[in-house]
Amino acid sequence: MKVLAGTVRKLLRRRASGHIVNLLAKLHPGDVSNILLELNDRDQLAVFAVLVEREKRLAALALTDLGIERCVGLLTAIPPAEVAKVLQEMETDDRALFVSSLPQEIADQVMEQMRLEESLQVQGLLQYDEETAGRIMTPHVFALREDLSVSEAIHTIQTTQDLEMVFYLYVVDERNHLVGVASLRQLLMVPPSTSLKKVMTGNVISVRTETDQEEVAALVALYDLLAIPVVDHENKLVGVITVDDVIDVIKDEATEDILHLAGVEADDHVHGNALTSVRKRLPWLGVNLGTALLAATVVALYEPTIAAIPQLAIFLPVVAGMGGNSGTQTLTVIVRSLALGETTWKNARSVVFKEMKVGLFNGLSLGLLAGLIAFFWKGSYILGGVMAAAMICNMLVAGLMGTLVPLVLKKLNVDPAIASGIFLTTFTDVVGFFSFLGLAAYLLR
Amino acid sequence: MKVLAGTVRKLLRRRASGHIVNLLAKLHPGDVSNILLELNDRDQLAVFAVLVEREKRLAALALTDLGIERCVGLLTAIPPAEVAKVLQEMETDDRALFVSSLPQEIADQVMEQMRLEESLQVQGLLQYDEETAGRIMTPHVFALREDLSVSEAIHTIQTTQDLEMVFYLYVVDERNHLVGVASLRQLLMVPPSTSLKKVMTGNVISVRTETDQEEVAALVALYDLLAIPVVDHENKLVGVITVDDVIDVIKDEATEDILHLAGVEADDHVHGNALTSVRKRLPWLGVNLGTALLAATVVALYEPTIAAIPQLAIFLPVVAGMGGNSGTQTLTVIVRSLALGETTWKNARSVVFKEMKVGLFNGLSLGLLAGLIAFFWKGSYILGGVMAAAMICNMLVAGLMGTLVPLVLKKLNVDPAIASGIFLTTFTDVVGFFSFLGLAAYLLR
Repeated sequence: MKVLAGTVRKLLRRRASGHIVNLLAKLHPGDVSNILLELNDRDQLAVFAVLVEREKRLAALALTDLGIERCVGLLTAIPPAEVAKVLQEMETDDRALFVSSLPQEIADQVMEQMRLEESLQVQGLLQYDEETAGRIMTPHVFALREDLSVSEAIHTIQTTQDLEMVFYLYVVDERNHLVGVASLRQLLMVPPSTSLKKVMTGNVISVRTETDQEEVAALVALYDLLAIPVVDHENKLVGVITVDDVIDVIKDEATEDILHLAGVEADDHVHGNALTSVRKRLPWLGVNLGTALLAATVVALYEPTIAAIPQLAIFLPVVAGMGGNSGTQTLTVIVRSLALGETTWKNARSVVFKEMKVGLFNGLSLGLLAGLIAFFWKGSYILGGVMAAAMICNMLVAGLMGTLVPLVLKKLNVDPAIASGIFLTTFTDVVGFFSFLGLAAYLLR
Repeated sequence: MKVLAGTVRKLLRRRASGHIVNLLAKLHPGDVSNILLELNDRDQLAVFAVLVEREKRLAALALTDLGIERCVGLLTAIPPAEVAKVLQEMETDDRALFVSSLPQEIADQVMEQMRLEESLQVQGLLQYDEETAGRIMTPHVFALREDLSVSEAIHTIQTTQDLEMVFYLYVVDERNHLVGVASLRQLLMVPPSTSLKKVMTGNVISVRTETDQEEVAALVALYDLLAIPVVDHENKLVGVITVDDVIDVIKDEATEDILHLAGVEADDHVHGNALTSVRKRLPWLGVNLGTALLAATVVALYEPTIAAIPQLAIFLPVVAGMGGNSGTQTLTVIVRSLALGETTWKNARSVVFKEMKVGLFNGLSLGLLAGLIAFFWKGSYILGGVMAAAMICNMLVAGLMGTLVPLVLKKLNVDPAIASGIFLTTFTDVVGFFSFLGLAAYLLR
């Protein structure tokens, strides 16, 4: 890829756009995306403009692998009429995704320029909520009537265009209700006069248009499907979601969880605008500042103690921080297992006990170690003892709260990935400060 | 599922194992796994034992959806001879995975009890490194010779057993070198006497046995494949990896990154043993304690300042913590974008500048706010000013280090997910303590 990107860069300098098109047209669209990613923003746009001018289909296919943020950047830089032509080369679900990601004004202009049929299809998908099956499905689903014979079915397959990606043959009744599914191989295994009704498997796993995309992905993964049909409230077949779209959903959901755990919104993109990122991250940091100051009021209660023994200030952040670290370990294990469906309210009790045990053991080991260090460093066995006791206490509580907080949030239908961290660190700060300073004040009075 | 799990529980109490088998045998294996997950450990084992006794194939299929940790628990509870029989019902790649996950002693016993052919196949896969294509492929790959005619090929397909999951027909030469690929539909579109050589697409995307599984997943996702053939160093076809296995890889890699970011090892399982988790988490916490105490030495330098103005201890953890939080936001965005291949050394410069800008803006907003709060709370404008300046400084550095640390680690071939956090919080602690206490000491002397 790097060599090819270098060649493309040289051709750009020489303004040899014809050669660029020839070179890229020989590659797989996925490789074209990879080359675009190797280029800087200006070169990327230049190459994309050349593709849009001469190879609309390749431009469209390359886009779908580029990531939405970058694509929006490229699409807003070319005229809406050209954007419409590029989008027309895409699958309907991708087209809807791109239209919905463009700024409203540009999206409207693009829709106006599209052929009527295609803009209606896009509007059809956009009527469904974001992150539902209806939004990510493609409405081009290949279905056969149940009263067809196998030979008629095979003939239909042979004469229909654009069928490369057909894995399952969905079977419908005369009113388009989904009634069964068959594989191409099944058709080859029976006499040609057999009716599809006899060949098909009747029990089709399907989803409704309003099914959450995460649930769709879970079903496809659980049943090892290559595609899943989408039906409306009357069980009429309206679309299909293929496994490649499911892979995107799984990646996106994982990204969402990873970013949420750090208090970042899922659409905060690394190559996006700085001010947009500020707007997205500032609220969470603001809440954090609030909880940190709240915890600081605990410290304020013990100002006289600190004035008497300023060494306490050295170890204070250590006690609070270690509780936060060990609680975050627990929290992350729980949040991920909730996302994967491995932990439920049902088996939660044993998990809570386990994590408290882990917190206690870790607290004992590191608390005693830290206590010894504090003792040897400052020569006060009381300081050492307070350090050890506070750390043990805080890490035990961290294990408990690291489990309970995400479980309770999940029960309350709040995304545990996004909100758990704030609650947890507030707990570990407060418990850390209280146990350390309170004990010190009591013993060192 | 919950209703069914309740029924199964009732049948267990009545010891009606025949009814349990009848009930479960009607379901999809994925549903059987879901029911098992709803049961407590004892019931789970009881139901599994019944399945092993009477429905080995279903037991095998249900296992593959249960998650490895839980399966190992179930498998070690039944006799090795029975385990061997259950594993024989699985695909070779799953069988190898389970054997390699069992404790060595039990694994040896199980391998002894397996039919020779199957234990050889398992040994064949286990010779490849973990997390490579060779380890996760299934060696049962359906391939056709290039000199066959289309009608011969179709006849082979009709007469070969166990072909339900064939998506692509791989074509090989007389020495089993991979030379092409064709779809079932392609065969139907040409006259029956055509040779496969003429129908097939010559340019097959394949991976080598030693290719990293993450790379395999990236290729399958990029090219929207349903399966990818695996070849040895001579380009001989030795196996195939299907998209359902790729989905597992994508999930596992995401889980690994999520857990690593919190300093937890990927195989630290929520339902595992507490002491195992302690052993896995303690080293990371120990390193954290070390770096926290290192940062604390900075505080120790300013003991006299704190003794004079004990209020500093109230705000000290806030300054350090806010730097840590804002740096972790940056860090997480960068680590995820590195994993998704969106950020490279090439486009890193603009990312560093962007994150520094974000850090500066966030620092300005929250630093000034925190400064005002400190001023109104404690009535000292110097304290307020020091607070604001230290937070701005720390959050700017957090943006810089949150980007640089993972980029440099990636460049050094260290997993940025696992090691970045420690370095980052050490930086934000030290910078936070130094800027806050240093400035305070200078101004409030």
